[in-house]
Amino acid sequence: MIRAGIVGGTGYTGVELLRLLAGHADVELLAITSRAEAGKRVDAIFPSLRGRVDLLFTDPTESRLSDCEVVFFATPNGVAMTQTKPLLDAGVRVIDLSADFRLRDAASWERWYGMKHASPGLLSTAVYGLPELNREDIRDARLVANPGCYPTAVLLGLLPLVESGSVDLDYLIANAASGVSGAGRKAELNLLYAEAADNFKAYGASGHRHVPEITQTLEQVAKRRVDLTFVPHLTPMVRGIHATLYARLISPVDAQRLYEEWYAHEPFVDVMPPGSHPDTRSVRSANLCRIAIHAAGSTLVALSVIDNLVKGAAGQAVQNMNLMFGLPETEGVDNAPVVP
Amino acid sequence: MIRAGIVGGTGYTGVELLRLLAGHADVELLAITSRAEAGKRVDAIFPSLRGRVDLLFTDPTESRLSDCEVVFFATPNGVAMTQTKPLLDAGVRVIDLSADFRLRDAASWERWYGMKHASPGLLSTAVYGLPELNREDIRDARLVANPGCYPTAVLLGLLPLVESGSVDLDYLIANAASGVSGAGRKAELNLLYAEAADNFKAYGASGHRHVPEITQTLEQVAKRRVDLTFVPHLTPMVRGIHATLYARLISPVDAQRLYEEWYAHEPFVDVMPPGSHPDTRSVRSANLCRIAIHAAGSTLVALSVIDNLVKGAAGQAVQNMNLMFGLPETEGVDNAPVVP
Amino acid sequence: MIRAGIVGGTGYTGVELLRLLAGHADVELLAITSRAEAGKRVDAIFPSLRGRVDLLFTDPTESRLSDCEVVFFATPNGVAMTQTKPLLDAGVRVIDLSADFRLRDAASWERWYGMKHASPGLLSTAVYGLPELNREDIRDARLVANPGCYPTAVLLGLLPLVESGSVDLDYLIANAASGVSGAGRKAELNLLYAEAADNFKAYGASGHRHVPEITQTLEQVAKRRVDLTFVPHLTPMVRGIHATLYARLISPVDAQRLYEEWYAHEPFVDVMPPGSHPDTRSVRSANLCRIAIHAAGSTLVALSVIDNLVKGAAGQAVQNMNLMFGLPETEGVDNAPVVP
Amino acid sequence: MIRAGIVGGTGYTGVELLRLLAGHADVELLAITSRAEAGKRVDAIFPSLRGRVDLLFTDPTESRLSDCEVVFFATPNGVAMTQTKPLLDAGVRVIDLSADFRLRDAASWERWYGMKHASPGLLSTAVYGLPELNREDIRDARLVANPGCYPTAVLLGLLPLVESGSVDLDYLIANAASGVSGAGRKAELNLLYAEAADNFKAYGASGHRHVPEITQTLEQVAKRRVDLTFVPHLTPMVRGIHATLYARLISPVDAQRLYEEWYAHEPFVDVMPPGSHPDTRSVRSANLCRIAIHAAGSTLVALSVIDNLVKGAAGQAVQNMNLMFGLPETEGVDNAPVVP
Repeated sequence: MIRAGIVGGTGYTGVELLRLLAGHADVELLAITSRAEAGKRVDAIFPSLRGRVDLLFTDPTESRLSDCEVVFFATPNGVAMTQTKPLLDAGVRVIDLSADFRLRDAASWERWYGMKHASPGLLSTAVYGLPELNREDIRDARLVANPGCYPTAVLLGLLPLVESGSVDLDYLIANAASGVSGAGRKAELNLLYAEAADNFKAYGASGHRHVPEITQTLEQVAKRRVDLTFVPHLTPMVRGIHATLYARLISPVDAQRLYEEWYAHEPFVDVMPPGSHPDTRSVRSANLCRIAIHAAGSTLVALSVIDNLVKGAAGQAVQNMNLMFGLPETEGVDNAPVVP
Repeated sequence: MIRAGIVGGTGYTGVELLRLLAGHADVELLAITSRAEAGKRVDAIFPSLRGRVDLLFTDPTESRLSDCEVVFFATPNGVAMTQTKPLLDAGVRVIDLSADFRLRDAASWERWYGMKHASPGLLSTAVYGLPELNREDIRDARLVANPGCYPTAVLLGLLPLVESGSVDLDYLIANAASGVSGAGRKAELNLLYAEAADNFKAYGASGHRHVPEITQTLEQVAKRRVDLTFVPHLTPMVRGIHATLYARLISPVDAQRLYEEWYAHEPFVDVMPPGSHPDTRSVRSANLCRIAIHAAGSTLVALSVIDNLVKGAAGQAVQNMNLMFGLPETEGVDNAPVVP
Repeated sequence: MIRAGIVGGTGYTGVELLRLLAGHADVELLAITSRAEAGKRVDAIFPSLRGRVDLLFTDPTESRLSDCEVVFFATPNGVAMTQTKPLLDAGVRVIDLSADFRLRDAASWERWYGMKHASPGLLSTAVYGLPELNREDIRDARLVANPGCYPTAVLLGLLPLVESGSVDLDYLIANAASGVSGAGRKAELNLLYAEAADNFKAYGASGHRHVPEITQTLEQVAKRRVDLTFVPHLTPMVRGIHATLYARLISPVDAQRLYEEWYAHEPFVDVMPPGSHPDTRSVRSANLCRIAIHAAGSTLVALSVIDNLVKGAAGQAVQNMNLMFGLPETEGVDNAPVVP
Repeated sequence: MIRAGIVGGTGYTGVELLRLLAGHADVELLAITSRAEAGKRVDAIFPSLRGRVDLLFTDPTESRLSDCEVVFFATPNGVAMTQTKPLLDAGVRVIDLSADFRLRDAASWERWYGMKHASPGLLSTAVYGLPELNREDIRDARLVANPGCYPTAVLLGLLPLVESGSVDLDYLIANAASGVSGAGRKAELNLLYAEAADNFKAYGASGHRHVPEITQTLEQVAKRRVDLTFVPHLTPMVRGIHATLYARLISPVDAQRLYEEWYAHEPFVDVMPPGSHPDTRSVRSANLCRIAIHAAGSTLVALSVIDNLVKGAAGQAVQNMNLMFGLPETEGVDNAPVVP
């Protein structure tokens, strides 16, 4: 049994981690911290876990995190970077679900996240936790930067095409829509039901933090500069991300076959038959990305869907943990999507 | 491995049965029939099952149902009653998720369902599949009438009180709200998104089919006539039933304790702490009923929630199958609720 | 032109008042106050009002409220009671959309609202602003206590029956469901989209503030004590209240006719044909209550729907203003419901 | 009073036309036809119109359409083209809300709509009813082809840019999302609440009927060939269209100023301040298009929102009628958006 801990367990990625780890046969949940809820039962905050999680939230300062073999950070940006070093030094492996270790370049991170990075020295040791690209590095990693939800959907949808050299890398467009849980469990007016229901809106249309995260990885694969316009939207659903990706063909390619071959052995990526349009709900609550490819004249359109809380966060984190500890990659994250 | 078949697998209870049975360690899915979709792959109709269910829909007349050990009917009312007899005769056990075998009294059934009953002789042999009431009978049953979704929520919420003799049985009120999946996967105008979203409405306020199903069981427990007013409502969510149950106290009772004791050993009923208000989502996708008790003056209010497709249909059917085949009662239906 | 002001215009009743008053031919909007948003344009907070409302929010202390002929309070409970006296003294009429002046009995108010009442002396002068009951008093009122949303739906649905003397007043049940806007525009976790969507739950099942408001008026009509159990529920829609009202018949009554006659001349109450089930959306954005009556054995079931922000708040407030200033009662609040 | 008729009044554009025309001071609604509902009261099908529309649906063959001065077709594609000629000959003006007269080129129409055009001779006389582009022609038109909902949002969002010559017309991208009412009031499985809720999906990604409608008008303005990739998506809301439009800059342009000037005198187009992201709900139930402009490097992003049933259908039709009959352009379509 792997002894696991969670820092910051009161958000949506936290409760999703709890759901998955509570059902994982090889994990023993040792501690879950929350400054605000310390002393309260986890299932008092999340009644859906009654009978499944018997822990109390503990104060971060009094927790048994260093007794863990792996600690997940499900904290707001800016927290993990201040607490990771001592855990690593104590031999604990860290999977950070926040953005703290996703960018290689500290200056870029500081510009997009508006604060000084507390552990710039760790950035180069962190492995970007996208198993479909970095599986071998993840196996040996001490510190995994779990990808963002938008980047996961966009990268899985673009990587084959970008690597193939067949599209114009100066003009990629990623138009994405996310369910409201992607914005986190925060008491903010714009996230209220009466604000977000029966409404659709773009945000960050002039520039979004996920752009450098996406382009960093695309450029690593393309081995050159990539220009991506990314516009996220908020759509009235709880879970799900849908990315609609546009690329201009510069040389002929059998895109359907390209994607099928790229992902032939991936347990969590499903390339759908030609002509498909994946529903976000077709991956709801599952650690899965479904992709469909369309050609509209000289423009290729890739459609990519994930559950933002699973393949876009907690599920991918467990997948990474499985790799790091030599467990079967699908263990504990192989449930069927819940539809309808 | 239990060889199982499904008749009528294109509705919501059908796809939910598929999800649960595909993940059940001791079940082999042998056949699934659909007249309309015969010859099509199951996962072409339900892409959420890609990679999990490899079957094609077969025509009922050509299916291997008699090779099964158990057959589930997930059909509209009026189908199972015409096909059950030969299956039983062939030694197949039958779990009917429709209403065909729920009422003991054929005349009452015919009045409420508006058709002649094709197998009135089977009504007395069918066991009403509410394990919390009829567990031992279910173990030996050849034919189980799986309870309706509303009746499951209402009965689990009222049974302890009704049996206790402490409330006025001449004036019980069950006010219930259901998500839209409860109405089935039918192309009807009133079930359209643009009709059912942002809208709340009662239906059947002058009388509903589920009343005789509920009172039949209440009367069996009360050993006298019971008068229940039941008003169902359609609420804009996909899954979930919430029953708000009103009963007038005629003698003092510690209702909280009564319920806790009644359900102390039930794996799928959770009596919540005093003062609780269960969310329907706290049981979403799980085979679970949560109940909370309130006293408002001399009126007792019981709140009872289930997922209509799981504890209200497919999950309870699998629970019944487990009982009938001597498997652990929770096998394959023990997943945590998906929240948010 | 009636010079009108609004205190506390950043909530949902505030923006709905703005929408209605901006379209009212005989009203000039003079001032709208908000401590938090003072100095900002109203249409920067509510872009839906761009081109329709040209005001800035002003600080309450610097506003021109005493130049108004009527001031609406769209504030949290506890504010209007501290600011109404000086306005009345200055000759301004006041319509309070909060609960401050709804109860006659200060002690009861203080118990339910958990604070000391600042102007108990005004309670007896306030007119309860339900025009269908108190139309003549409203015409002459200086201070109108605009009814709560639940009480409006419940009272309009029960008044004819309660006055008729044909039902058991010791055991009335009001089961109601409200859209999320009824909880106000407050940054609270439980009101988030990802909490309230695809979920249904009761709250306040052991007792709710609206009970004394409802029973006070029922008792005034019944001229005796009335016992009402009221359980409100939160349902995933933006607008709308649906009340399902249960009463036990003690003497025969033609309820359909009773209601039709009671409301025969009411412009904003629609008694639907026998057998109807009113949709909440059938009154969306309109100042309207629709009612349908069912008999289920000896239990009468009345269904009553309103838009909580219109007939349950801002629309009824404008209706009251029209009465107070001798305008046609329907002016500015006669738009058709928006469906779908 | 203009005598008006509606053909095919049981869909969502039909009921929206009824709502708007019933409140229009200069219109007398003479007849509304429906083969399926002939003989039934309009308000029995649409209870929201109780007290506002007193008509019965009549059979098309028995209706008084030729007594009307204007007839609106709110029919499925393929109906108006068979019935328009006799009405025009009888001196009736026609506003067709379907697609029958939107394309100039009969061959293109037949290819996209999969049927033979019944009145190709009328195509050249029909005026494309986008007032912001064709206002003067509409005034004199006998036959107006009311634009589609997607084309309205996309065209208003792209026209200034396309005319300016500052963007690459070989690679325009229109990514759009629509509420479910845009698909019509049809009993189809994929439009069910339990299918469309909590789900987001693209459709028609390889080519959609609205492309030729959009490019025909863009090319008229650009005076050259235009290449547009258009991907529509279904989003879980009732009303609203959001278009996210991407264009690559080829010469510098002050896009904000360009749009503000283009639409300076338009009553129904609102160019929002720099940095804005329009909500679809900010135009809900109103005849309004809001636009915001963003620059993301060399890519211009225009955001354009409408209510698909109002500015995208019935509202624009009434706006066109006002122009055709010399009424103030805003009459009857000047209500404020309903928010929340």
